Amino acid sequence: MERADKGLAFMLQYENVAWYDAGEVRILDRRVYPRKVEFVACKTHGEVAQALTDMVTQSTGPFTAAAMGMALAAYECREKTAAEQIAYLERAAYTISHARPTTVSRMQLITGGCLEAAKAALAAGEGDIAMAIRDYTVAANNRRYNKVGQIAKYLVDMFPDNGTVMTQCFAETIVGQMLKECRERGKNIRLFCPETRPYFQGARLTATVCRDMGFDVTVITDNMPAYVMQQEKVDVFTCAADAICCDGYVANKVGTFQIAIAAKYMGIPVFITGVPDAGHPTKDSVRIEWRDPNFTLQAMGVKTAADGVKGYYPAFDLTPPGLISGVVTDLGIYSPYDLKRYLAQSDLGPYEMVI
Amino acid sequence: MERADKGLAFMLQYENVAWYDAGEVRILDRRVYPRKVEFVACKTHGEVAQALTDMVTQSTGPFTAAAMGMALAAYECREKTAAEQIAYLERAAYTISHARPTTVSRMQLITGGCLEAAKAALAAGEGDIAMAIRDYTVAANNRRYNKVGQIAKYLVDMFPDNGTVMTQCFAETIVGQMLKECRERGKNIRLFCPETRPYFQGARLTATVCRDMGFDVTVITDNMPAYVMQQEKVDVFTCAADAICCDGYVANKVGTFQIAIAAKYMGIPVFITGVPDAGHPTKDSVRIEWRDPNFTLQAMGVKTAADGVKGYYPAFDLTPPGLISGVVTDLGIYSPYDLKRYLAQSDLGPYEMVI
Repeated sequence: MERADKGLAFMLQYENVAWYDAGEVRILDRRVYPRKVEFVACKTHGEVAQALTDMVTQSTGPFTAAAMGMALAAYECREKTAAEQIAYLERAAYTISHARPTTVSRMQLITGGCLEAAKAALAAGEGDIAMAIRDYTVAANNRRYNKVGQIAKYLVDMFPDNGTVMTQCFAETIVGQMLKECRERGKNIRLFCPETRPYFQGARLTATVCRDMGFDVTVITDNMPAYVMQQEKVDVFTCAADAICCDGYVANKVGTFQIAIAAKYMGIPVFITGVPDAGHPTKDSVRIEWRDPNFTLQAMGVKTAADGVKGYYPAFDLTPPGLISGVVTDLGIYSPYDLKRYLAQSDLGPYEMVI
Repeated sequence: MERADKGLAFMLQYENVAWYDAGEVRILDRRVYPRKVEFVACKTHGEVAQALTDMVTQSTGPFTAAAMGMALAAYECREKTAAEQIAYLERAAYTISHARPTTVSRMQLITGGCLEAAKAALAAGEGDIAMAIRDYTVAANNRRYNKVGQIAKYLVDMFPDNGTVMTQCFAETIVGQMLKECRERGKNIRLFCPETRPYFQGARLTATVCRDMGFDVTVITDNMPAYVMQQEKVDVFTCAADAICCDGYVANKVGTFQIAIAAKYMGIPVFITGVPDAGHPTKDSVRIEWRDPNFTLQAMGVKTAADGVKGYYPAFDLTPPGLISGVVTDLGIYSPYDLKRYLAQSDLGPYEMVI
């Protein structure tokens, strides 16, 4: 189990995903992982925002990186007055939270929490605001990990013994917690991971974590999910989300929508993990992020299409509630049509996020 | 239009796809096209069969290559007696037609036709049996092109003016004929081509032909069809098939099944071009071809997944008749539930194929 736990820790722990120390944020470069283990070093919070825009990290990596970016911003303005520091951090929060359009709402929880932590530290006369933000982030991540652990328990209840599970893209924390939960229960599963073009998060990241955790994992291309559901008797499709709207629409990596359509056709349940976003009362507030269209005209850096052919790159799609069997939260599995009840029942803090 | 027609000719004409001459068959290597224009030179029909197995050419390319391989086999045995030549060609027909499992039935039409042409030439006392087979193939291809031209007319009737058409993989002749028909009618369409992992036939081949023919073409990754159908108002999904079974099941490039599921969900018609295979009374005679599973763990030659992760590579899937709006034949558009009527009405020769 040594490699297993080491690999998991490496992929999932905040120290490796993104870490602030001594005026620098280091972010694991998931664009090249697992082929290479390299870090992007940022000397300003603007560089952190740019790294987020440039997709250096994905899944929940950006949230930890954003918080560490706030710590770096605090370091940048450490010589200013308290009022100036707060103003500086407020501007940094805006910059960082808007680095990627689809996740602004969740990013504002992260940067908002850091801002509150900074204000409290300033009010208490603490000297190192950057470290106060980092300590706050570590504690917040640990709370988040515990809540995702709860989600994992409800999710794993849905897996039959020796079941077959299909995922989509890289759901980071929940993937690790779900596999840990399976291991603790002695419940064996095998996994099919669509590779997730054009970035290959499924092939590069999810499959690596599954392997590191000691599970049987198969990478398929993104045109195979329906065939695999039919031929390999997939029991459950599950993924996390970039936004869970209170009306039951779910924004997640492009492709989730068509996998959910295929799952419905096949009678396979679709479980979305995470909690509803109070910041998205309906799907109308979700802005689907567009990336460089030329990126779909290459693969792993090698050009695929001829000159004069157009590309197209929406990063996410919206899956309607009618295709979703349940949203698996830390409080249990909710119907996508009943998400307001979760928000009414939850003890989530004002800046708390569960993903 | 110069480049347009040149590009089309290059991609579609048998002289460039595969050509027998003076004891050699040259096959356009579509594994690297359009980045490089290279030919694989085969000195024996066994090398032709191996090239087919190795996927040097795809779509209808293998049929022309197989026929040219039969010409090469005739060259190989030219010094033998007529009876020995026939026996040699029968063995060559078996080898070539079994190079890829899913298309054996259609390949037997090709090799069977070549065998008949050889027998006729031997009976007539012709000296160069190889050239007789080549001449037969050119005539058969021209007949096939004309019938596919008929299919194109029925298909293009289904496209609205300024419509949006989605394809899958590379349907070669029908793609060229359909675009030619659009051009002749002055009917403008734009095309979305899923890239078709892991070989990228959509990105590399279909998109290149569309561009060469002067149409607006966009390559999308294989996880985007449902999103594009929804957001770009796709009017028609159309593809050819590797086998059209008489019970209405259609074998085509893996991914066709899930695109058809998404199209049905979205209310978009699905038109399969080609004619029913008398050799496949039902889907049960179709053998789905499996290729090297490790091929899904790389893209354009660059490894994507970590060691210890499994691959998976079914080349085709089966789309059930309930998802198909019509099979577009040279005699019109048939319900997938009524394909025996086509066979009863058609004037297809015993070795004729329309794709």
